[in-house]
Amino acid sequence: MNKPKNHILVIFGASGDLTYRKLIPAVFDLFNQKLLPKNFAILGIGRTEMENEDFRNKMQEGIQQFSVTKPSGEDEINSFVNQLYYFSFDTQSPDEYALLKWQLRELDEKCGTDGNFIYYMATPPSMYNVIPAQLAKQGLSDENDGFKRLIVEKPFGYDLETAQKLNNELLQHFKEEQIYRIDHYLGKETVQNLLVTRFSNGIFEPLWNRNYIHHVEITSAENIGVGNRGGYYEGSGAMRDMIQNHLLLLVGIVAMEPPTIIDSTNIRNEIAKVFHSLRPISEEEVPNYVIRGQYIASNIKGEKVKGYREEKGVDPNSRTETFVAMKCFIDNWRWADVPFYIRSGKMLPTRVTEIVIHFKSTPHHLFANNESIVNNHNQLVIRIQPDEGLLFKFGMKVPGAGFKVQNVNMDFHYSDLDSTHLPSAYERLLLDCMLGDSTLYHRGDAVEAAWKFVDPILKAWKNNSEIKVHGYPAGTWGPDVSDNLIDGENITWRYPCKNLANDGNYCEL
Amino acid sequence: MNKPKNHILVIFGASGDLTYRKLIPAVFDLFNQKLLPKNFAILGIGRTEMENEDFRNKMQEGIQQFSVTKPSGEDEINSFVNQLYYFSFDTQSPDEYALLKWQLRELDEKCGTDGNFIYYMATPPSMYNVIPAQLAKQGLSDENDGFKRLIVEKPFGYDLETAQKLNNELLQHFKEEQIYRIDHYLGKETVQNLLVTRFSNGIFEPLWNRNYIHHVEITSAENIGVGNRGGYYEGSGAMRDMIQNHLLLLVGIVAMEPPTIIDSTNIRNEIAKVFHSLRPISEEEVPNYVIRGQYIASNIKGEKVKGYREEKGVDPNSRTETFVAMKCFIDNWRWADVPFYIRSGKMLPTRVTEIVIHFKSTPHHLFANNESIVNNHNQLVIRIQPDEGLLFKFGMKVPGAGFKVQNVNMDFHYSDLDSTHLPSAYERLLLDCMLGDSTLYHRGDAVEAAWKFVDPILKAWKNNSEIKVHGYPAGTWGPDVSDNLIDGENITWRYPCKNLANDGNYCEL
Repeated sequence: MNKPKNHILVIFGASGDLTYRKLIPAVFDLFNQKLLPKNFAILGIGRTEMENEDFRNKMQEGIQQFSVTKPSGEDEINSFVNQLYYFSFDTQSPDEYALLKWQLRELDEKCGTDGNFIYYMATPPSMYNVIPAQLAKQGLSDENDGFKRLIVEKPFGYDLETAQKLNNELLQHFKEEQIYRIDHYLGKETVQNLLVTRFSNGIFEPLWNRNYIHHVEITSAENIGVGNRGGYYEGSGAMRDMIQNHLLLLVGIVAMEPPTIIDSTNIRNEIAKVFHSLRPISEEEVPNYVIRGQYIASNIKGEKVKGYREEKGVDPNSRTETFVAMKCFIDNWRWADVPFYIRSGKMLPTRVTEIVIHFKSTPHHLFANNESIVNNHNQLVIRIQPDEGLLFKFGMKVPGAGFKVQNVNMDFHYSDLDSTHLPSAYERLLLDCMLGDSTLYHRGDAVEAAWKFVDPILKAWKNNSEIKVHGYPAGTWGPDVSDNLIDGENITWRYPCKNLANDGNYCEL
Repeated sequence: MNKPKNHILVIFGASGDLTYRKLIPAVFDLFNQKLLPKNFAILGIGRTEMENEDFRNKMQEGIQQFSVTKPSGEDEINSFVNQLYYFSFDTQSPDEYALLKWQLRELDEKCGTDGNFIYYMATPPSMYNVIPAQLAKQGLSDENDGFKRLIVEKPFGYDLETAQKLNNELLQHFKEEQIYRIDHYLGKETVQNLLVTRFSNGIFEPLWNRNYIHHVEITSAENIGVGNRGGYYEGSGAMRDMIQNHLLLLVGIVAMEPPTIIDSTNIRNEIAKVFHSLRPISEEEVPNYVIRGQYIASNIKGEKVKGYREEKGVDPNSRTETFVAMKCFIDNWRWADVPFYIRSGKMLPTRVTEIVIHFKSTPHHLFANNESIVNNHNQLVIRIQPDEGLLFKFGMKVPGAGFKVQNVNMDFHYSDLDSTHLPSAYERLLLDCMLGDSTLYHRGDAVEAAWKFVDPILKAWKNNSEIKVHGYPAGTWGPDVSDNLIDGENITWRYPCKNLANDGNYCEL
């Protein structure tokens, strides 16, 4: 495998939780697998004052606790943490960036990292319009003397307008090719596996279109509520938190045309094309295409469970959606009129993310001697989590006389594969950025296209108080009216398990 | 389920092994599941003199030993065997058939079986031209007063000429619709399941043609030799014993067009069409399309194993084939130029019957970063025995960074299905005949078409002593030259397990 070029990883927000729990342990895992370049350093930047030694000790703790590969001994971890440096300054204050520049140049010379810097923004989004500008002002975005890459964390905007604004700001100081919009979701094995499954198997591609696919269903369910994040969630909701980024991305990968070659530009071009082909849902049409819900108090296995409005930091009259189910269409030659049903929610009966390809049933029902056969679609279930893998549902003969058909399963568990080490999402994505591969990062135009699709829905909800918020008892599969979205008789969402709640009534909030 | 009409089952050869081990236990199993009509009797006919009571006692033994469902007690088995009768006469002697007629009429009246008779020919094939003729002469093939069905056991001829002669003889006395050519192979669940798999799943049919299938491979392997049947086998060989009937039938079912409806006429029409579309192999072309082999002595797991020529009843210079591998083409719109490779042999490393659909690989190799991917065909393995089921081989991402592809399996075992009782082949087929359903019986024209295809090969082998007989060590997958039949680089037969023999050389006999 190629090794990245010598470089320094600069982390803004280095005293925060993300750095401690995710970033440094992930970089350590790369180190442990000898995937880091010969000359390498990390410069942590934060407002908290700390000596290098303090920072190293703290990060060592984080590594012990959160790294996947775990250090084999003192020597090893020391030789890693000795590459860590810390620099305290107020990133809000423009004057101090000259100091940072000086600091970086010195470290670069000392470590022999050839002027290559990666800036990781592990900061609140409010800093996205400050730090990149100041870096650029100091010439620290200039690639004449080594690469300069900027990693920004989601959310990438709050709606179309803010997303465009953020992109415009970033692009004033960095080129699109320098910007890595990170989303740990994209680093998941199965998301990448989707590409391989589709495009390395001769039998899927011929079936992967409107001639053979009846509809596509994508579910991302959580079985927990907002917990202590109620305050944050009030300003977000399921549409921004899950649909706009993760679920639309899955739609993109499922629906994309085969890329010319497997590289960042080609894959992301194809995903962007899908986003641009999403049939717009106008504000007036929203109630027919989108259902929003909010969990209400219920009783799960004898235990009382809070409703969303009772959670800490949540407005008692909140209309924030904790559940979205929607129907989309992709207006292109491959997918015209094939519904894509997507849903995501909190406090559902189980945690699962899955894509279900529902194939059309046979054009002629040879064995239609009982009713259940009429809806006997073949299904390919692509499980993203938990228990990544593939499940194929097909018809087989019922043992015995006659030609009765029953549905059976063929199953593949990704965990059955031999793998010494499955990289964490951050490990994978950081390595990609170090290698200059942005395939698994969001591109600005695609982010805006996704917001463009979602924006009228958010607007309709905000402007039209007549659009219902459906209460669903915590522990159920969301509003009972969700099934109304699905076209076709006797077709419902796939319910991987039963409702858990044994009281609480569906209602209008 | 429909019950058969009242009838008498007349078994010629009732003192023989087939009746004792297979037929009567199978009918008992039907009885035990209440699938027999209210009025029913069995009339056993044989040369051996026996009283009804002797016959019943003997059959009771057979039932205890060979029935699947087993009698629950004395009362049950008595109420069954009391329906059994025995009549001894010399079936070679025309004069005695008047007696049989009288006997049958009396039994019919006594039991109230409405003149419906099924004649089962559990006799040597030499009787096929005697008994039906004599029955007809007595008016016992006349369906004016109830149905009259004739079940004949294979072999249905020895070559095209004798097969045509047999059919002609039978058709002088019985109509094609009255003739049930039984082959226990067709009664197997998975053979029928093949129909269901193909035609109840929307995703297979679009792929099931020359656009997506690279080649089809059908194997029927036995891991035993001829045993005590050397004398019989000398006059048969693998081509007559396995290819002409069983393997071509599997070709027929795999390759057939969807029947208009699932009934005897439509299914058998489509199978016959496949046989008629088989590209003829002329005598001159035989060496290029067909490889014959004969097992030779070897050593399996430290034990000496006999060669075919050393078996009891076998000519020490025998050129009878115990192995056939061949390439066929089906000249129609669906299959033009798709090779069907079929092979069958004795003394191979394992017992297995399977169909492998090799799909074409992707038209463009997106992930072709290593050589093994080039031949990365998707495969659908339909296992007929043992362990009936489906296996699907497809490409998945190798866990970890990059986009490497590896082949993985998705598996379905038919035995995982709940089934209180899986009918034996004879049980299934006898019930079908009682119900007048000939779907799973061979039809005369199809039998002749299969012989027509096979005949030039048999003639070439007989007439041209230059066509090689390849010796293969017992316990190997047949002649090493078999792989030469397969078109395409780096493509071989599928070898479900390794060779067992650790000595013995491939040679020319």
